[in-house]
Amino acid sequence: MSFKDTLEEKVAYAESVIKSYLPEETGFQKTVLEAMNYSVLGGGKRLRPLFMSETYRMFGGNGQEIEPFMAAMEMMHTYSLVHDDLPAMDNDDYRRGRKTTHVVYGEAMGILAGDALLNYAFETAAKAFPLAKNSHLAARAIEVFARKGGIYGMIGGQVADVEAEKTPGSEMTEELLLFIHEHKTAALIQSAMMVGAILAGASDEDVKKIEQIGYKIGIAFQIQDDILDVTGTMDELGKPIGSDEKNGKKTYVTFKGLDGAMADQKRLSSEAIEALASFANRNPFLEELVDSLVNRHK
Amino acid sequence: MSFKDTLEEKVAYAESVIKSYLPEETGFQKTVLEAMNYSVLGGGKRLRPLFMSETYRMFGGNGQEIEPFMAAMEMMHTYSLVHDDLPAMDNDDYRRGRKTTHVVYGEAMGILAGDALLNYAFETAAKAFPLAKNSHLAARAIEVFARKGGIYGMIGGQVADVEAEKTPGSEMTEELLLFIHEHKTAALIQSAMMVGAILAGASDEDVKKIEQIGYKIGIAFQIQDDILDVTGTMDELGKPIGSDEKNGKKTYVTFKGLDGAMADQKRLSSEAIEALASFANRNPFLEELVDSLVNRHK
Repeated sequence: MSFKDTLEEKVAYAESVIKSYLPEETGFQKTVLEAMNYSVLGGGKRLRPLFMSETYRMFGGNGQEIEPFMAAMEMMHTYSLVHDDLPAMDNDDYRRGRKTTHVVYGEAMGILAGDALLNYAFETAAKAFPLAKNSHLAARAIEVFARKGGIYGMIGGQVADVEAEKTPGSEMTEELLLFIHEHKTAALIQSAMMVGAILAGASDEDVKKIEQIGYKIGIAFQIQDDILDVTGTMDELGKPIGSDEKNGKKTYVTFKGLDGAMADQKRLSSEAIEALASFANRNPFLEELVDSLVNRHK
Repeated sequence: MSFKDTLEEKVAYAESVIKSYLPEETGFQKTVLEAMNYSVLGGGKRLRPLFMSETYRMFGGNGQEIEPFMAAMEMMHTYSLVHDDLPAMDNDDYRRGRKTTHVVYGEAMGILAGDALLNYAFETAAKAFPLAKNSHLAARAIEVFARKGGIYGMIGGQVADVEAEKTPGSEMTEELLLFIHEHKTAALIQSAMMVGAILAGASDEDVKKIEQIGYKIGIAFQIQDDILDVTGTMDELGKPIGSDEKNGKKTYVTFKGLDGAMADQKRLSSEAIEALASFANRNPFLEELVDSLVNRHK
């Protein structure tokens, strides 16, 4: 089976797992349940659940307790998008071609649907306890899941990003940009992979390696985003001016130049793939997945 | 020592526990950390952590693992207030005589500080795992903590409340009002007491009893709120018209009348206190605490 077919099959599996953990739309709180499901079922590549289950498989995991965590991961990612789209934040009316949650359900329900998804992420992750052979592992996985989503993870990056954008005269430095990329983008990829490794019983040393690999994948992924913003527009318009540059937004390309950014992305993704290949049990699909992501053209 | 002195001492203890789990205000995400601490340290009676630690003591708990949960409980309660005060929700500029979080830090940071507190509540609760003698108990406590805060708990009630207020022509029924009170108010009191009982190793049967007691305390507390809205204004203005009635808000008093509400409150609180007194190891302070709350005059 080609990589593309395998990928499609695995995304379909992740999709079915996520769906199976979504709430039934019933009761006096029905509206928020509809808003949650609308938000989660808005498409998306389901990358984080995929990274999680494939890392789990790489370390020999073969139980059911990974599934509530896969769903929880996507709920956490989705809540961050729902709140990010709010009028007081990015004020986006559309995401992936569909109206954003607060546009459909109103701003109050947008806030509450995000809150509900974040809380339900933990409620769902906790469903792993009765499924796990070893509840200590599920406990460690919840710790990592919480930390990487919070003020020392994704929210930390989100705050720094919002502040840099909204504070007049604040200067974006390379150090701050890397902090934002590490926390806003890489943290949830680290979380996904670390949770997979932990639940499968990987050693502390291997979990640390996975954390570094997740960091490299996350940063490479984000650099590729910044590169595509420039080259994508170049293909369309014949000149290398991206939307980030037009918006006065400093990106990795601003600091390193296009060639420098491409070189760093290449280096980081190669290092990540090599590190993945160094484990006793390799998972070739996971290596291909990383390669396909950082070499994507849109 | 009088009840009042003991209460003060215990509130001071809860306060110190909560403070010890708040984040240090440092790093690129400093603003959100400040906003979190500002929100949590805005006063409040620390009732939920008190209910938690006193229920824990009643069932013989004497470890340290209760403390992260006490702090987590207050973080969850606080995030709900921060988001409740947002312009798209109740749009309140003041709470307990201080400016609300979004007024001080801006709306985007108000949203993010709430998100951060909710996430950090789980991150903090997870710190109980290495402290607990029995990690299964900490796992069950996290499950309850998540469920009672979420769509089948507090958020469920919040959604129903917001929708009833914001939907023109929607009719408030007694059934819906009780749903809102049970979920918006009682759920976190149930959560606090159940987490205390579970961590102390109470039997499933006793945890169920505690859930019912928490329900009764929560509803009685909320009825007392509705009563005070009427009688408090009566004392001040000499006429029995409360702010709820002026705002066209239907309360427990609307459905049951003042006498009926008082009778129900009395019955529920007496039943809760009697049920607490029926456990093998009584905690007289906890019984007095319930009595003082439902007989409060402001």
